[in-house]
Amino acid sequence: MSLDVIDIARISDGGSSIPQIQARVDLFKTWDIPSGSKILEIGCGQGDCTLVMAYLVGEQGHVTGIDPAPLDYGAPITLGQAQDKLKQSAIGDRITFHRSDLEGFLDSSASEPLYDFAVFARSTWYFPSAEALTPILVALRGRTKHLCIAEYATDIQGDIAALPHLLAAISQAEFNSRDNNLDRDDNIQSIITPQKIRELTLEAGWVLKKEDVIRSPEDQEDARWEVGRVLSEGYRVRSRSYGGASRQEYADALISAIEESKRALGPNPKLRTLPTWLGLWA
Amino acid sequence: MSLDVIDIARISDGGSSIPQIQARVDLFKTWDIPSGSKILEIGCGQGDCTLVMAYLVGEQGHVTGIDPAPLDYGAPITLGQAQDKLKQSAIGDRITFHRSDLEGFLDSSASEPLYDFAVFARSTWYFPSAEALTPILVALRGRTKHLCIAEYATDIQGDIAALPHLLAAISQAEFNSRDNNLDRDDNIQSIITPQKIRELTLEAGWVLKKEDVIRSPEDQEDARWEVGRVLSEGYRVRSRSYGGASRQEYADALISAIEESKRALGPNPKLRTLPTWLGLWA
Repeated sequence: MSLDVIDIARISDGGSSIPQIQARVDLFKTWDIPSGSKILEIGCGQGDCTLVMAYLVGEQGHVTGIDPAPLDYGAPITLGQAQDKLKQSAIGDRITFHRSDLEGFLDSSASEPLYDFAVFARSTWYFPSAEALTPILVALRGRTKHLCIAEYATDIQGDIAALPHLLAAISQAEFNSRDNNLDRDDNIQSIITPQKIRELTLEAGWVLKKEDVIRSPEDQEDARWEVGRVLSEGYRVRSRSYGGASRQEYADALISAIEESKRALGPNPKLRTLPTWLGLWA
Repeated sequence: MSLDVIDIARISDGGSSIPQIQARVDLFKTWDIPSGSKILEIGCGQGDCTLVMAYLVGEQGHVTGIDPAPLDYGAPITLGQAQDKLKQSAIGDRITFHRSDLEGFLDSSASEPLYDFAVFARSTWYFPSAEALTPILVALRGRTKHLCIAEYATDIQGDIAALPHLLAAISQAEFNSRDNNLDRDDNIQSIITPQKIRELTLEAGWVLKKEDVIRSPEDQEDARWEVGRVLSEGYRVRSRSYGGASRQEYADALISAIEESKRALGPNPKLRTLPTWLGLWA
């Protein structure tokens, strides 16, 4: 574990686990964002990634995190509580939060003229569709020097321990692709592939400079969280509450496949979180 | 390779490949169907499994294959042509084909009073839904001593080479779960899990005597065929021709995941066909 991770864990004060922080440090180091950078983070949520970036850009850097979610969203602590806590941390002065979507933010007086980096840190799968990204990618042209997108990849690269997480992602995206029935409590609203992101960014005028795929640290909890959610009784009940019979039967088969993929790993399996694909554009 | 397989291949005269015949022999030997048995096969299609069973039941046995599909269905040779060819083979007198669904068949004069075994040989996923199986399972009570169901299982048991086939099955079932839009050219209309089959048979009054899961022989071609189909341009075009935008985007993500899962196996990968789950009821 690097000194950075220990330091960030101390500042985070229990807000994130060590493996989660490690995963984020791995992520942002791949982009090689220089000290002193001004970053705009789109879809910052509770600010877990915001904190890591604020640490890595150093004293002269700044991270502006925006998210349209209500401040009372989230459990066990709300978005507002989590953001307030980070603002009060040792590096809180490097962070600004705005409750806004990007278009509202860029139009408002809160908008600064130019950022070095605009970052989506695993926030694109929370968009209702790939198409919803398009106006944002267009609006960012001329407002940031670089665009960075990190998102899970569906390529488990032969790692069978990541199969339950892959199928859990497919299951959540299935539910949220039933017409007009998004459940915003799902972390995964739609699966947007690297291929799709490459297409959309190109159409919006961005030039891809670099891409990488990084494996998730063994202890990263997301796989366990997502799989646990999808195998819960409440999730199954919800799935059976909406849509036609064949839709529901299909969803049941997915849930069953997730159970089997977990069972095939043996008792108390260590689930691997999906790898992350990273792109950097200018 | 057993003598049985060589013998059946000779009788089949190019109708099926050696690995396909091997897979079917493995399947039916698991059920231990005695010589002289009278078998009713539901969803016999071109008769590939019919032939193998007719061979295994010996001279005193008989297999009645029923299928509601039109006789001109199928390519490169049609259902009718394939069935005719088998009827003219060395063991053709052990085989009877009827173009009928089960209910029509049992009501007709063609129905014999009692079978030793009623067999679904990987034909349940071709039903439009699990519920469509129910009347058939009920109708078979009292008409057959035993019920045998063999179907693919979604549990790839840690074999990453079977992941493309699993995802191809999920993709086809996805398309056919879009309301009122079955494409009967897909071999997989719906994924009916062992758990679901256990429930449905129990409700219909059947008692499960035995179940097994068998791996597919390495050379079995189904994985390659199914994956090839799903990655064809025509399949993608069809997927984009129907249903809402989010549905189509979801389907695109599945296709992309299939491509990746295949690529992750290296150049010219050997795709593994899904394992088969077998149940025997009385």
